[in-house]
Amino acid sequence: MEKIDIKDDEVAIFAVGGLGEIGKNTYGIQYKDEIIVIDAGVKFPEDDLLGVDYVIPDYTYLVENIDKIKGLFITHGHEDHIGAIGFFLQAVNVPVYAPPLALALIKGKLEERKMLRNANLNEINEDSVFNFDNIKVDFFQTTHSIPDTLGIAVHTPAGVVVETGDFKFDLTPVTHQPPNLQRMAKLGSGGVLALMSDSTNAERPEFTKSEAWVQKSVEQIFDRTTKGRIIFATFASNMSRVKMAMEAGVRHGRKIAVYGRSMETAVRNGRELGYLDVPDEYMLEPQDLKKTPADETLIMSTGSQGEPMAALARIAAGTHKQIKLQPGDTVIFSSNPIPGNTASVNKVINELEEGGANVIYGSINNIHTSGHGGQEEQKLMLSLIKPQIFMPVHGEYRMLKIHGKLATDVGVDPDNVFIQENGDVLAISKERGARVAGHFPAEDIYVDGSRIGDISSAVVRERQKLSQDGLVVITATINMETKEILSGPDFLSRGFIYMRESGDLINEGRKVAFNVILKAMNQDGANEASIRDAVVEEMGRYLFNKTARRPIVIPTLIRVK
Amino acid sequence: MEKIDIKDDEVAIFAVGGLGEIGKNTYGIQYKDEIIVIDAGVKFPEDDLLGVDYVIPDYTYLVENIDKIKGLFITHGHEDHIGAIGFFLQAVNVPVYAPPLALALIKGKLEERKMLRNANLNEINEDSVFNFDNIKVDFFQTTHSIPDTLGIAVHTPAGVVVETGDFKFDLTPVTHQPPNLQRMAKLGSGGVLALMSDSTNAERPEFTKSEAWVQKSVEQIFDRTTKGRIIFATFASNMSRVKMAMEAGVRHGRKIAVYGRSMETAVRNGRELGYLDVPDEYMLEPQDLKKTPADETLIMSTGSQGEPMAALARIAAGTHKQIKLQPGDTVIFSSNPIPGNTASVNKVINELEEGGANVIYGSINNIHTSGHGGQEEQKLMLSLIKPQIFMPVHGEYRMLKIHGKLATDVGVDPDNVFIQENGDVLAISKERGARVAGHFPAEDIYVDGSRIGDISSAVVRERQKLSQDGLVVITATINMETKEILSGPDFLSRGFIYMRESGDLINEGRKVAFNVILKAMNQDGANEASIRDAVVEEMGRYLFNKTARRPIVIPTLIRVK
Repeated sequence: MEKIDIKDDEVAIFAVGGLGEIGKNTYGIQYKDEIIVIDAGVKFPEDDLLGVDYVIPDYTYLVENIDKIKGLFITHGHEDHIGAIGFFLQAVNVPVYAPPLALALIKGKLEERKMLRNANLNEINEDSVFNFDNIKVDFFQTTHSIPDTLGIAVHTPAGVVVETGDFKFDLTPVTHQPPNLQRMAKLGSGGVLALMSDSTNAERPEFTKSEAWVQKSVEQIFDRTTKGRIIFATFASNMSRVKMAMEAGVRHGRKIAVYGRSMETAVRNGRELGYLDVPDEYMLEPQDLKKTPADETLIMSTGSQGEPMAALARIAAGTHKQIKLQPGDTVIFSSNPIPGNTASVNKVINELEEGGANVIYGSINNIHTSGHGGQEEQKLMLSLIKPQIFMPVHGEYRMLKIHGKLATDVGVDPDNVFIQENGDVLAISKERGARVAGHFPAEDIYVDGSRIGDISSAVVRERQKLSQDGLVVITATINMETKEILSGPDFLSRGFIYMRESGDLINEGRKVAFNVILKAMNQDGANEASIRDAVVEEMGRYLFNKTARRPIVIPTLIRVK
Repeated sequence: MEKIDIKDDEVAIFAVGGLGEIGKNTYGIQYKDEIIVIDAGVKFPEDDLLGVDYVIPDYTYLVENIDKIKGLFITHGHEDHIGAIGFFLQAVNVPVYAPPLALALIKGKLEERKMLRNANLNEINEDSVFNFDNIKVDFFQTTHSIPDTLGIAVHTPAGVVVETGDFKFDLTPVTHQPPNLQRMAKLGSGGVLALMSDSTNAERPEFTKSEAWVQKSVEQIFDRTTKGRIIFATFASNMSRVKMAMEAGVRHGRKIAVYGRSMETAVRNGRELGYLDVPDEYMLEPQDLKKTPADETLIMSTGSQGEPMAALARIAAGTHKQIKLQPGDTVIFSSNPIPGNTASVNKVINELEEGGANVIYGSINNIHTSGHGGQEEQKLMLSLIKPQIFMPVHGEYRMLKIHGKLATDVGVDPDNVFIQENGDVLAISKERGARVAGHFPAEDIYVDGSRIGDISSAVVRERQKLSQDGLVVITATINMETKEILSGPDFLSRGFIYMRESGDLINEGRKVAFNVILKAMNQDGANEASIRDAVVEEMGRYLFNKTARRPIVIPTLIRVK
């Protein structure tokens, strides 16, 4: 690895993940031989990463500097901030500090992976303070779509670095945890060297609406829905939304059944930690659902993104074991489809409506607001913190760029705005400003089947090719000495054509393969590799001419004497 | 096929495709032994239809009734209305009647498929009239994002049926072809038995903005872009947008280079047919692009949906042969991402901005409007045509349903609104109203590699499985009599793991396979099938235990004596 040279009067800031992307947020702040790591997020793969379950950061730099890491500090309990915790601790098992709800979710994840016993987990809140050799870490409360969301201030002899975590300025949060404006302003008054701030909604010229505004719509829907069940679908991670729906259910005399694994976890955590004010007698066991009158029932469900295996999609498709859709059901989608999910969401909506449900979705119903602040809130954060140096984080390139421009609009010197990439180490001193002190490897790591790293982009490319035209296996036994084909060639395909209907093609294909192999064996200097190459090339051409498709051709030749 | 019984005083209307979906619009109107077919559209497959290039309707009903079909009448030249023309004419080679631009596009498609010579193609305009035995067909001009868009009225002794085609009410269209309100109103005054109307934007409670509004924004962008090239990306099929961009280029002294095959076709057709007012001296040949000053250059490009092979994505990625991105380029995305394309579009925007371009995109820039009317325009169409019976078409179920509700809002009897499915035949008489007279097969047909029908959903499912975890081929030569393994087993994979790094797994896997085959051969009643089954099952289990993945296991056994 390239030498990264940080001077004694410099504090370095970097992203292991989170720049140029939404996901795998993992940031570092380093002063001398101390490193504070913030968040351990996962990224969900784009559609073309076939068969890849998660994308996580390359932790190499952290592994090589494990002795310097004082701890992993978690801002809040969303997947893009805690989802890689298992992989992270496998790489660098350092103490973890997290606010209550995030901690509960982390415990669940580590328990599943049988990693709980070896983890050093600690609860924090906005009043926690940590003093290391040279570094002090403290916190300030922010608002987001989940309770217990913190911003982090890292005080070093070279200056103060603030990382906001995810935030909006929700001044009427349903979680009763308003943003701590005073503490942010005090940081600004004291002088902040560098700010790393959430760029998610940098494209939106607005002040994001409060959850209280959504709550009003939800109450109105419950008021007017006097008949039939209500099925409420949202992200289980959106505790604000879960809270307002369940508490509206209680107020309207509806008992609550909870479906979907992540929703069950969220409700259990939320009730245990006191975020959800739902008396026991309002909680329905699955077997009691059928006995409860429709107009006294509320079903909390996962699947607001149209995920095919989630409870809601199975209800819509009629394949859910316990819940059958009833005409007169009201289904509320309290979420916006994230890019890539629109078609799946629409499919579920169509199925629900065909089944006779009244479906409430989309922006005109005022049943969703973002958890991230728009441009006005990003400017407000910049104005409260007043940083000398600004590095926008948590966003794709164009979001970072717009956020950088907003910073200059509120007075940050354009030369002090740094649009960085994952792995760039920005070393900052009060006097000399910031410079890129080096770079560490920070490519995406693909995780498939819960294992790391043995999925390369080459394998993903093979899958993409297989998914287009399938494959054909040509098997033959050959004697290289006598240049005879002793058995075969056999012709076998998957994902290419429907074999039972393609007898002619298979028979002719066998004959073509026979001739190809025979000819290749009789070439000067023929060997197994040259025969295989001939099969791949000539059978590929033959099949393309016949079918206009290019399956992967796999020759399996068995040599006997 | 089920008997479909249409009485002599009934006119039947049906969709071969277009109901419950956006795409493959193909409608039919039948009176006695005469059928009018409207449009021959294609649908683009959803992401999970791996390797499927197009989805087309099942033309069985039309094939069986080919003698009745008087012609295929085309409303306009978009893919979801003409894209299946080649497949359609292969199935039922009937005369085609299309307005000029649609006709030019159809000619191009048929020429590519070497089908032009056998096609009977005829140009129509809104003043065309066709008189068949009992049916009269005439037209009315509508507005959409492409010129030459027609609605169709089919006059039968049983009553008049109107099919709108795609429409908005653009009262200031840049194509100078305003909607013919008078003709629509006259149809309404005369009495219309049934209306089939475009439901695309039924979810939008608005009157869609005119293209003139977009033109104003485009002009403003050209006015203020005094330096650097302008790259304008839109759907080539959106002739209004192509027109306003190119004509703005001419007004601002920019010469125009055109990239992307569909854009080249659109510009050629548009200039030949007189829609694009661009003098020859403003058209740049590719080789002249480099000689032209940046601030006198306009590049028209495909790829506004982030399509990876389109010109714009290759410019953004730096792989376009002729166009290298220059800092200071202004790139305009005059389109909205359609569901499913958002991530690809964002990727291209990020790359363009990283390359130093100024990218103008998104709704806040006022550079896109829909080609389809919103709820207010759908109500306006219903109010002009005043149908007795209403069958919303061209939309997914929830859109049809909302559109049906809108019809009742403007006075259609709720009992006369029919939300149908593809293949439902609705028989209508003035006196008795409408009834479902039967159903013909109308499932999706998958097209892959330009061939129809030999891709079944079983093959698509195999591809989905291959795309998740890849495959493993186990090859061995066996002697069933002596119960010996003569060679192998060999172990070969694609899309599973990266083989060069997985020597241990392969070696161990070979040994496991050896034992599995040996054991299976020695079972009572062992035969080739039972050995294959054992390999699939036990190797599947072994590989899952080792890797947490489930590749497709393909045993290829060669029997020798």
